[in-house]
Amino acid sequence: MTKKFQSIGIIAKQNDKLVFETVRSLHDFLKSNGIKICVDKNAQHFLENTGTSCVDIADMHKNIDLAVVVGGDGTLLAAAQSMVKHEIPIIGINRGRLGFLTNILPENMHKDLKQILNGEYFQETRTVLSAKHMRGEEQLATCLAINDVVVHARNVVRMIELETRIDDEYLNTLHADGLIVATPTGSTAYALSGGGPIVHPSVAATLLVPICPHTLSNRPIAIDKNSRVEIVYSEHNELNGIASIDGQMESEVIPGDRIVIERSPKPLTLIQPNSYSFFKVLREKLNWSR
Amino acid sequence: MTKKFQSIGIIAKQNDKLVFETVRSLHDFLKSNGIKICVDKNAQHFLENTGTSCVDIADMHKNIDLAVVVGGDGTLLAAAQSMVKHEIPIIGINRGRLGFLTNILPENMHKDLKQILNGEYFQETRTVLSAKHMRGEEQLATCLAINDVVVHARNVVRMIELETRIDDEYLNTLHADGLIVATPTGSTAYALSGGGPIVHPSVAATLLVPICPHTLSNRPIAIDKNSRVEIVYSEHNELNGIASIDGQMESEVIPGDRIVIERSPKPLTLIQPNSYSFFKVLREKLNWSR
Amino acid sequence: MTKKFQSIGIIAKQNDKLVFETVRSLHDFLKSNGIKICVDKNAQHFLENTGTSCVDIADMHKNIDLAVVVGGDGTLLAAAQSMVKHEIPIIGINRGRLGFLTNILPENMHKDLKQILNGEYFQETRTVLSAKHMRGEEQLATCLAINDVVVHARNVVRMIELETRIDDEYLNTLHADGLIVATPTGSTAYALSGGGPIVHPSVAATLLVPICPHTLSNRPIAIDKNSRVEIVYSEHNELNGIASIDGQMESEVIPGDRIVIERSPKPLTLIQPNSYSFFKVLREKLNWSR
Amino acid sequence: MTKKFQSIGIIAKQNDKLVFETVRSLHDFLKSNGIKICVDKNAQHFLENTGTSCVDIADMHKNIDLAVVVGGDGTLLAAAQSMVKHEIPIIGINRGRLGFLTNILPENMHKDLKQILNGEYFQETRTVLSAKHMRGEEQLATCLAINDVVVHARNVVRMIELETRIDDEYLNTLHADGLIVATPTGSTAYALSGGGPIVHPSVAATLLVPICPHTLSNRPIAIDKNSRVEIVYSEHNELNGIASIDGQMESEVIPGDRIVIERSPKPLTLIQPNSYSFFKVLREKLNWSR
Repeated sequence: MTKKFQSIGIIAKQNDKLVFETVRSLHDFLKSNGIKICVDKNAQHFLENTGTSCVDIADMHKNIDLAVVVGGDGTLLAAAQSMVKHEIPIIGINRGRLGFLTNILPENMHKDLKQILNGEYFQETRTVLSAKHMRGEEQLATCLAINDVVVHARNVVRMIELETRIDDEYLNTLHADGLIVATPTGSTAYALSGGGPIVHPSVAATLLVPICPHTLSNRPIAIDKNSRVEIVYSEHNELNGIASIDGQMESEVIPGDRIVIERSPKPLTLIQPNSYSFFKVLREKLNWSR
Repeated sequence: MTKKFQSIGIIAKQNDKLVFETVRSLHDFLKSNGIKICVDKNAQHFLENTGTSCVDIADMHKNIDLAVVVGGDGTLLAAAQSMVKHEIPIIGINRGRLGFLTNILPENMHKDLKQILNGEYFQETRTVLSAKHMRGEEQLATCLAINDVVVHARNVVRMIELETRIDDEYLNTLHADGLIVATPTGSTAYALSGGGPIVHPSVAATLLVPICPHTLSNRPIAIDKNSRVEIVYSEHNELNGIASIDGQMESEVIPGDRIVIERSPKPLTLIQPNSYSFFKVLREKLNWSR
Repeated sequence: MTKKFQSIGIIAKQNDKLVFETVRSLHDFLKSNGIKICVDKNAQHFLENTGTSCVDIADMHKNIDLAVVVGGDGTLLAAAQSMVKHEIPIIGINRGRLGFLTNILPENMHKDLKQILNGEYFQETRTVLSAKHMRGEEQLATCLAINDVVVHARNVVRMIELETRIDDEYLNTLHADGLIVATPTGSTAYALSGGGPIVHPSVAATLLVPICPHTLSNRPIAIDKNSRVEIVYSEHNELNGIASIDGQMESEVIPGDRIVIERSPKPLTLIQPNSYSFFKVLREKLNWSR
Repeated sequence: MTKKFQSIGIIAKQNDKLVFETVRSLHDFLKSNGIKICVDKNAQHFLENTGTSCVDIADMHKNIDLAVVVGGDGTLLAAAQSMVKHEIPIIGINRGRLGFLTNILPENMHKDLKQILNGEYFQETRTVLSAKHMRGEEQLATCLAINDVVVHARNVVRMIELETRIDDEYLNTLHADGLIVATPTGSTAYALSGGGPIVHPSVAATLLVPICPHTLSNRPIAIDKNSRVEIVYSEHNELNGIASIDGQMESEVIPGDRIVIERSPKPLTLIQPNSYSFFKVLREKLNWSR
């Protein structure tokens, strides 16, 4: 049996007129359905004079059992960092065109939310990666990745050398612009542009997609999602590189640094209306309809 | 604990001088180690005057607890049809250059087999697909696929139309030369030439790889290995097509026919020396070493 | 200065209701503009009771100084075989959606033709290939190719071996499903599905695009359009192959046969309205607009 | 008739033991053949105590009628900037493994040079591009490109927006990591890693290769080598980008900047031994031999 949501947090992309209208409509709809609402501090200006309490995204999890994100996939990726940690499920509403993650359209919002508030929905569990930036034995940073972890050249257009180990076994030494390590969710994002396959969210795999590899037989590789990936930014590199998480956070890497990627014990939970179909989103986003 | 093998069947590629020498050497080695041997009828001429009993491949399973295949990947694929059905594990010995499946080289044969006969080996389980050729409600043929099932235009160089359903849900309508449905084992065979990713044997996925798709955003897709794939050879096709299994067996398809592909309940079991590494085979076969 | 057309031949795709309407409208328009018209025998039924003379496509060149093709790119490719030989320029009118060659839409037909009849147009010259099927010293067949010459496996899904020579110099030995030799015009047809680049019609190049090559570094190659390409269907092939021209004509090839491809001395001349833009057609056909 | 070279400049990769030996051997060989020699200032330390005059690379053209580069393709690309301007032909000698441009191997050096000094060689003309970095009407920088001009995101892993015009006609608006504009010479360098085709040096084309394009139908495009390419680094980009020439020189671009690329009136002239074959280099560098 599905759970009925009672306290909902609203998170929204800033400075966007279309988002403004959707957030107001969403707010009024939830209120009229007796839902307790709180709103992301950054989106507070959308709801002036409504008396709705606002909190920092990082604290929102204390007050809510569901987060509704209004914006694009980028807004949802940012919000997910906190929600995954605290196991709060997310709904994504797009502000105009369909997103892979924000797949409820404004025009369907009332209808879809009505059903979801009635408990008519399903939970989709998306694998999340956890990345650590290591220098020797020191852990410089750690982060969750919903889409991907990318190790790339920085500042210049030049090949870098990366050595990859899977579960402590040597895989290969790559000469390329970079390497994308992606979840199934990320397979339709940057990894797809890099030539990777589409991976259905239910597949228990992690993708390694080389970016512009010098050796033409260096192809995308799918490995088990429980495997541990270690990428060494080779000592042979003359310049520093960059590690990027979901295209949102960056960390500078120096020769010898390692990026260690494992499956996060906590996944992302998306709440989907029963009408949701991954294949339908694919067909629309990739223009497969004739 | 691993099982010790006592009765071994030898299956060999025909009419190949290199195979001949390897088979003789293999035979003598097994005999001197006290193993009960039988040999594939087709390879009988390799072992004349040795007194070794020969049987048809289809009946071999009754007498053996391990099959050793000498030849290329093609020879192993053919032998696997029977061995998978009767759950007999296989070892592949190549006659010169490394294969993805026949990965024991003749020069290592004695050393590797010695260890395997001593119980020092590991079992690698490879997913197998089961394909049915349906016309209306009639099942015209059924077959196991170790590598792949391919639906393709026949006789002419012309695009065909294929409609694909995954677990009874519509995926897309493809206009292409054909469609490859591949196991992880098959990901390094034809699917790789078609632009598919490499899939580690441990990943629980099935690949759909379009061949020369007309719509450029029709990319390879990985779905769960337990999903049922149904490919309809569209009524719009003016000419017949062909369904091909492992590049070895073919069946002509007419407009309206369906190819239904599911995971076979019985996998292929490969016996590997403890020194075996999938990544090492990848590096050598794809020339990744510099 | 551009030439004014006075005698126009109409060639049309058969059995197509949309084409029927366009042909009638085209016929009446040309007649009212004082143009002498003749019509392809196969399209005669579109123009019953109009008194318009009909001729076989092969003889049409005697009576016309321009051919107007109504249909898809396939209809134009077929008509071009004869028109190229006799240096008759062609206009292509599509019956609904844009084609790469038939790029005048029915709704613009009157406006565009008005201008063209007034001499406001430009001539676009498209390179044509000439292919010979050779067995020993015997020439079995010869043909013009507007788009491409394809050598492919026949009847089965199996790799073939092809040896290619450019201007009598050895290029490589390919193991693949086949090889596409394409003009710039053909670069947006089958060759594009095979992973080839888009080549602007003004580029003096011929493309060689391997289909699903076994060696992953076998990439599309552009060579000078004046180079002579010789493809040997290797003696190592166990089965016969097929040579296909523009996806319309086929010839069975046996091991040892050679396909010799050179630039045809006569190009295809397309008449384009001054508003025509190759890049605009690209953007629309490939969905580049957002 | 070919010209006989009498004054030769030696340019060498620094700090490389293999290069040192090759330069000494080259120097002695040329001297014993009565050639007047000068040496690049940076390589002077290789020829201490030989009395050979040394000059700055930028001034070398005044004293020589041929430049011999010892090193990798990168060394030759750097030297070519000056030699192209002054129409001095170049020979490339590699220090161990074959390069696309430095295709004389040390072991063949004496034999090949002997022939070349005897006038037995051919001149290969390679198209060179000229790139201008424009901000409004101001020209910030100008540069020659032997391989390619790349416009790329800088410092971060993020898509950029580029608007491209060909001969003042709008081509498309690209969302990608970047765009490579390559000569045929550059087609086997970075552009090949980005998915571009191989272009024979004799083909009169320039390649546009998108790097990880967001729209999957954005394919490599070949245009006429005389066309003018203008890339606008869109005002929509929030961060600065980078323009890179031959992977050697970089220029930071800000939103609104334009990179204008035209064919350089002066090509690069390579001196090749008569045994040189572009296809042979391809087969060796891309591992096409079986």
